[in-house]
Amino acid sequence: MKVGIIGATGYGGLELIRFLHNHPEVEKIELFTSSEEGTIFSSKFGHLLTIHDTPLQKIEAESLAGFDVVFTSTPSGVTSKLLPPLVDIGPKLIDLSGDYRLKDLGAYEKWYAKAPAPESIVKKSVYGLTEWNEENIKSASLIANPGCYPTAVLLSVLPLIKERLIDPEYLVVDAKSGVSGAGNKPSQITHYSEMNENFSIYKVNKHQHIPEIEQAIAMFADFETTITFNTHLVPMTRGILATSYAPVFPGVTNKQLNDCLLETYKSHPFVRVVQDVSSIGTNRVKGSNYCDIFVQLDERTNRATIVGVIDNLVKGAAGQAIQNMNVQLDLPQKLGLDVVPLFI
Amino acid sequence: MKVGIIGATGYGGLELIRFLHNHPEVEKIELFTSSEEGTIFSSKFGHLLTIHDTPLQKIEAESLAGFDVVFTSTPSGVTSKLLPPLVDIGPKLIDLSGDYRLKDLGAYEKWYAKAPAPESIVKKSVYGLTEWNEENIKSASLIANPGCYPTAVLLSVLPLIKERLIDPEYLVVDAKSGVSGAGNKPSQITHYSEMNENFSIYKVNKHQHIPEIEQAIAMFADFETTITFNTHLVPMTRGILATSYAPVFPGVTNKQLNDCLLETYKSHPFVRVVQDVSSIGTNRVKGSNYCDIFVQLDERTNRATIVGVIDNLVKGAAGQAIQNMNVQLDLPQKLGLDVVPLFI
Amino acid sequence: MKVGIIGATGYGGLELIRFLHNHPEVEKIELFTSSEEGTIFSSKFGHLLTIHDTPLQKIEAESLAGFDVVFTSTPSGVTSKLLPPLVDIGPKLIDLSGDYRLKDLGAYEKWYAKAPAPESIVKKSVYGLTEWNEENIKSASLIANPGCYPTAVLLSVLPLIKERLIDPEYLVVDAKSGVSGAGNKPSQITHYSEMNENFSIYKVNKHQHIPEIEQAIAMFADFETTITFNTHLVPMTRGILATSYAPVFPGVTNKQLNDCLLETYKSHPFVRVVQDVSSIGTNRVKGSNYCDIFVQLDERTNRATIVGVIDNLVKGAAGQAIQNMNVQLDLPQKLGLDVVPLFI
Amino acid sequence: MKVGIIGATGYGGLELIRFLHNHPEVEKIELFTSSEEGTIFSSKFGHLLTIHDTPLQKIEAESLAGFDVVFTSTPSGVTSKLLPPLVDIGPKLIDLSGDYRLKDLGAYEKWYAKAPAPESIVKKSVYGLTEWNEENIKSASLIANPGCYPTAVLLSVLPLIKERLIDPEYLVVDAKSGVSGAGNKPSQITHYSEMNENFSIYKVNKHQHIPEIEQAIAMFADFETTITFNTHLVPMTRGILATSYAPVFPGVTNKQLNDCLLETYKSHPFVRVVQDVSSIGTNRVKGSNYCDIFVQLDERTNRATIVGVIDNLVKGAAGQAIQNMNVQLDLPQKLGLDVVPLFI
Repeated sequence: MKVGIIGATGYGGLELIRFLHNHPEVEKIELFTSSEEGTIFSSKFGHLLTIHDTPLQKIEAESLAGFDVVFTSTPSGVTSKLLPPLVDIGPKLIDLSGDYRLKDLGAYEKWYAKAPAPESIVKKSVYGLTEWNEENIKSASLIANPGCYPTAVLLSVLPLIKERLIDPEYLVVDAKSGVSGAGNKPSQITHYSEMNENFSIYKVNKHQHIPEIEQAIAMFADFETTITFNTHLVPMTRGILATSYAPVFPGVTNKQLNDCLLETYKSHPFVRVVQDVSSIGTNRVKGSNYCDIFVQLDERTNRATIVGVIDNLVKGAAGQAIQNMNVQLDLPQKLGLDVVPLFI
Repeated sequence: MKVGIIGATGYGGLELIRFLHNHPEVEKIELFTSSEEGTIFSSKFGHLLTIHDTPLQKIEAESLAGFDVVFTSTPSGVTSKLLPPLVDIGPKLIDLSGDYRLKDLGAYEKWYAKAPAPESIVKKSVYGLTEWNEENIKSASLIANPGCYPTAVLLSVLPLIKERLIDPEYLVVDAKSGVSGAGNKPSQITHYSEMNENFSIYKVNKHQHIPEIEQAIAMFADFETTITFNTHLVPMTRGILATSYAPVFPGVTNKQLNDCLLETYKSHPFVRVVQDVSSIGTNRVKGSNYCDIFVQLDERTNRATIVGVIDNLVKGAAGQAIQNMNVQLDLPQKLGLDVVPLFI
Repeated sequence: MKVGIIGATGYGGLELIRFLHNHPEVEKIELFTSSEEGTIFSSKFGHLLTIHDTPLQKIEAESLAGFDVVFTSTPSGVTSKLLPPLVDIGPKLIDLSGDYRLKDLGAYEKWYAKAPAPESIVKKSVYGLTEWNEENIKSASLIANPGCYPTAVLLSVLPLIKERLIDPEYLVVDAKSGVSGAGNKPSQITHYSEMNENFSIYKVNKHQHIPEIEQAIAMFADFETTITFNTHLVPMTRGILATSYAPVFPGVTNKQLNDCLLETYKSHPFVRVVQDVSSIGTNRVKGSNYCDIFVQLDERTNRATIVGVIDNLVKGAAGQAIQNMNVQLDLPQKLGLDVVPLFI
Repeated sequence: MKVGIIGATGYGGLELIRFLHNHPEVEKIELFTSSEEGTIFSSKFGHLLTIHDTPLQKIEAESLAGFDVVFTSTPSGVTSKLLPPLVDIGPKLIDLSGDYRLKDLGAYEKWYAKAPAPESIVKKSVYGLTEWNEENIKSASLIANPGCYPTAVLLSVLPLIKERLIDPEYLVVDAKSGVSGAGNKPSQITHYSEMNENFSIYKVNKHQHIPEIEQAIAMFADFETTITFNTHLVPMTRGILATSYAPVFPGVTNKQLNDCLLETYKSHPFVRVVQDVSSIGTNRVKGSNYCDIFVQLDERTNRATIVGVIDNLVKGAAGQAIQNMNVQLDLPQKLGLDVVPLFI
């Protein structure tokens, strides 16, 4: 199998390389770029010395046609233009950017402040939240891989909303992410001396993942709601922990909440329902494709606390993308992804 | 002025030393301990070499009587027994532990799982949230210095509750703390290799600061409510950022929310109302007694996001304790505390 | 193939599990302990939930006899007693502790302050610096896996000493390690709040890896010398970078130094000779079995600066141990170890 | 007293503000810039909200003439042009950049790759290593404040070289710095995700502080030598630890080495000779003007290990600059600088 990666120099791209390197069905990985054609990849990324000593290639539709799968891991606003000519010419397309996630083009324009992708292609694209959309993913030619925050939030709250155990009318999601989520481009905020030992909040009530989460709640749990969602930057590199709060419906017990999660994910290898809160933390999933979830009912307030934890670069990006590729190609979901989290 | 510190080896104690060293009215600082009598302090804490080369002393009521102020910075369950004989025998007492904060002894027993302090002394004690209780602090003989989380939460939400701008019936507080809040005792959780690069949640819906916050909302904003409150550990040493969520009452605007905060704190030197969210972060207050607060109305949901940021060891412990001492002794609040945050 | 790990709860043990999980020849991994028999492993290490939900077993010679390979990853002073009865009863033994590394029992006693292992077993054991001792490793029944620091130092300086390009009479090695090298036992030094943002030096001129390095220089480069070697703790979890300094012999050029390294390691997949110093750093090998090395002649002083970088838990422990297992079992060296470094 | 700071937006400038804010003789601090005239300082640096809400001013010789002291904290190559017209027109000048440190203009050109300052002004300038040049500093009109690395290295090795206890002919200095030493300008190297958990070496044998150290050894210890000096980046914000290695002259004892340091610095408040190596570490001096030093003779090799530790932004920049100002103005050295290190 021959796989191409467009946007290989970003952190999502680097993680695709890390996992595809050990994917038994992938024979060849080629790296594409819009701006650094010819650069020997390992001269830019020393950790790939002896592993990827080949040059970055120019993006051209003809040459891409021969690939089995093409991943795009680019900033928003790029694949809306780049991908349409590649649809249905050969390779399965898996887009890690936000360009094909929102079915409502107006919402895309509003939250991303960019022109949307063509409506026909957006319609064709399939939202790649693997555990919730497997059937559609199987036959998709273009997958819109979910955002990092939505993955952590949706996997943890969707079962409880779908089963009408919690009330999404007053769902508050307080999410926290490691700095790699901000990408590889240096800035004052991510300058080490100013990011280190600094915990901060950003994009208050304005994050573009809000409509994505709301859309998925409607799509998979059949509930229209407006959520409160905020994001924080944690002085660490990898990991997202999202804490969600919602009232439970009258009579709902802690056991019901946990059983719902266990039942939903019993046959899904990458979602782990954790009973002991001291086992929940971003380092328990670091470097892996696991999503750990936890729920607890507060009987004083009759509200549930729901926690979702992922490695933002893996289950929140490259890992889920490869999981989707496996589904598309009818391979076992764990192929190439069955690694043990680093923990330390 | 002669000042004693009981529990000097904890992080609260070390911060008291750091600030009192530069307090112009403090002539002498003596350090007391229950277990390491005779130890030269700087042999244990190298950063104090040439600064505190004196031995730790044994705690004895007689010798403490001659002090002007005695700070206690001990684990919960210690000063409930230690302080009663010292009340009204001479020194002003400022307790940084949780033993005198809750007026309801039953609540103390329930949340701390310890026997409470004598009721008469608890009654006598004054809750030291400086900006909200200045009159009572002036004449107090025993101050219950607020907890770190309650300080960050209360300073940011109290004005809005008191003015009935937000509805505390559905107040959700999602708080995050640096690791120094867990104290100086090594444990598996705070072992560097397992804490580093790990963001986690702990004591879900069970933190002993919950009744303290609820009590203060009743006391200062005249509102009985049960809140949702959760705490997270951030892989950094200092700092608390608490994000609170509540619906606003109909018609309330973003400007009203901000004006309320600005008006409340206009003459309080340590509370800063921040307009630009990119200026909010734990490193903006690091090492200082400032509390930075921020509020924003989300017009999609009619809920307010309220942020409070402090250095947990300073405004959340030693700094506020000295601020209270200044008030008790009729000194300017900023005396000895007027330092610039480190930022980097 | 059936593999046992004694000391699975340490960081070396956890890394063995991480890599063996993906080793194609390993069918079964069983975990042994001296003190926590019966504990479900994943209840202690949440990252292994659904991966290792089996209980820790009691160490017993009879049951271990049936294994193909047994790794021991215990503190020093344990395997000197534990391993002798297991030698030649069945499994290949690979000891990650320091108990079998020093051929001079007196040196062991002096530097480790412990009783040495039996002389006959020490004699039998083979020092597992894979790239330099492959022939002996092939037929070894007991491998003394090298220390983390010696691995980084030896791989980088041995070729230059052996070829008499640098003068080991005045070899100064300044080594720096991430905190995971100190193990998983909490202590004041490794308490997060005191380790974070703290760079320190420890065991000045007294590290037990000194005689190991000197012995290997004599063994593989035929030179008896006493070295200067110091170790520092870096506030990060993984990684060792060792900077070595030595005068070059008259007339030696920078090119000769580099060519010597390139030539030595041209057929060794895990040692990478780096030309661009900006590509050298602990994150370039993080999570992988690579050792990156770099050399530069300072023409002002005619001294060489030699840098060796490894992940202390992988090439400095578990990774090299598995590499040695592969050699013992005549498998390709990269089997199960061919992972891409994490970089971020 | 009226003090101006040129280059206030850099980390050295921010630290000047932090300390001068509490300097009892400083009445007014004004901030100057070449590029952001008019910007309200606290809108750029949130930690200074309510502390420095004044605008940045344009640099003009006339207006600067009225100041008592002007600090310049700019990149190299700026003050070589900026300062000459300001010399002797009024304010004491203290330059934190490297432009006036090297008396040999050719060396400046070679190591800095920039045109040097005018020879007459360089001659006039006084090297501000306070503890070693106090007499000249008193009467200086322009002070060349030492580099961060040279401060840590020189304070620790100069006494031993001057007393001919160690042999500087083979002095190897292995220095490590926190990331703030790289300044406030974002770059790929200092991008959080790539700097975090990464220990690296840089500018191998090429650091511009090499000639500064050699010049000072000649100047203060009367010994011409070429040293080996390398620098490493530690994933932390503040602190330098420099480990130096040199043979001792025959017969020199560990006690002599320590006595020499103790005797040299007995009346210097900011240099602390540490006996217990476990008390040495960058967090022991964090945020303060202390320099902690340690020496130990290795009797196996007859070489000394010498350690110097500072906060690079304080004793290595702003703190030493203010200490020099105090000396110039005949104030006590500790004025405004007598703060307790943060430790945690």
